[in-house]
Amino acid sequence: MPAGRPKQFDQTEALAGAMGVFWDHGFDGASMSDLVEAMGIGRQSLYDTFGDKRGLYLQALDHYMGTTMRCVLDRLANPGSALENVRAVLKMWEQESASTKCRGCMLSKSLADLPRDDPEVAQILRRHLGRVQKGFKDALDRAQADGEISTKTSTRALAWTLTSTGQGLSLLGNLGVGKLTINDIIKSTERLLV
Amino acid sequence: MPAGRPKQFDQTEALAGAMGVFWDHGFDGASMSDLVEAMGIGRQSLYDTFGDKRGLYLQALDHYMGTTMRCVLDRLANPGSALENVRAVLKMWEQESASTKCRGCMLSKSLADLPRDDPEVAQILRRHLGRVQKGFKDALDRAQADGEISTKTSTRALAWTLTSTGQGLSLLGNLGVGKLTINDIIKSTERLLV
Repeated sequence: MPAGRPKQFDQTEALAGAMGVFWDHGFDGASMSDLVEAMGIGRQSLYDTFGDKRGLYLQALDHYMGTTMRCVLDRLANPGSALENVRAVLKMWEQESASTKCRGCMLSKSLADLPRDDPEVAQILRRHLGRVQKGFKDALDRAQADGEISTKTSTRALAWTLTSTGQGLSLLGNLGVGKLTINDIIKSTERLLV
Repeated sequence: MPAGRPKQFDQTEALAGAMGVFWDHGFDGASMSDLVEAMGIGRQSLYDTFGDKRGLYLQALDHYMGTTMRCVLDRLANPGSALENVRAVLKMWEQESASTKCRGCMLSKSLADLPRDDPEVAQILRRHLGRVQKGFKDALDRAQADGEISTKTSTRALAWTLTSTGQGLSLLGNLGVGKLTINDIIKSTERLLV
């Protein structure tokens, strides 16, 4: 590409395409030809802009955290009842996991897919997961301060449990276990909020 | 191979080798050369005995259910206090997930890895997962009959929640989130048993 010539594609759009491929197929299962096709760019542009496959994967994961997961974090930080925010996220997860089109959570798929010999990716995933837990913990702390949940509850522990529940729901939803099973899990989890 | 010549390898041992590769790398990430090496057999013997890669994967999954997951099901069906059996499984999962060598659960990794275009594999995984849920439900029903847990508890719902918790713990354990986080999740989950 001649120096100074602007890149002829929308980086965010290309990244969203890559995210979809990694989301559906995981890191190992995503082929370069699938990626190139979904991103709508040439192979060389991909390398020039996003680096290698691993670099692209990490940027796609960032994109997921900044878009899909952002909805969860924004909902938790909504003004108004913090407890209702937590319940709303559970409701959102329930609807997604019970849907026959459930795609699962890209984060939980990435955790399962984790390469054993790549501590850097593990560290990045721990950071992403920690942001989800912090979103829950901040909401639960506020709910506790506002008298919506018991002061005896460890908000740290409950926040991790809700984060972990999201992972379990994602796997079961992706498997298509059905509405009744998902509703069972949500109802049990809600018992922890009282 | 000449007709009638006995196979020169232990099928169960070879299958255990294949299981380890799929467990660590998933279906897509497992290469035929890794499989052949871990199984200690030739490529042709692999095809002759286990069929193609997908067939081998399903048999490796059966092997996992019959060995590692068997420990969980046997523990749940132990004579004595059924509630203690459930607690013992949670304790087992806590220790595994908190270990720095945690490998995750092959079942949860397979769920995350699920090919979108293979409903037969999804059905097999649903059946395996259903066996885990049934193991919990039978134990919880017994605990309820023996007055160990409230008769108001939906044992079906709680059994699905414990099954899902196992999936979440496996992903977080595999990521290496550490003892404190795992203990947080176990403690919250135990609150559901009272």
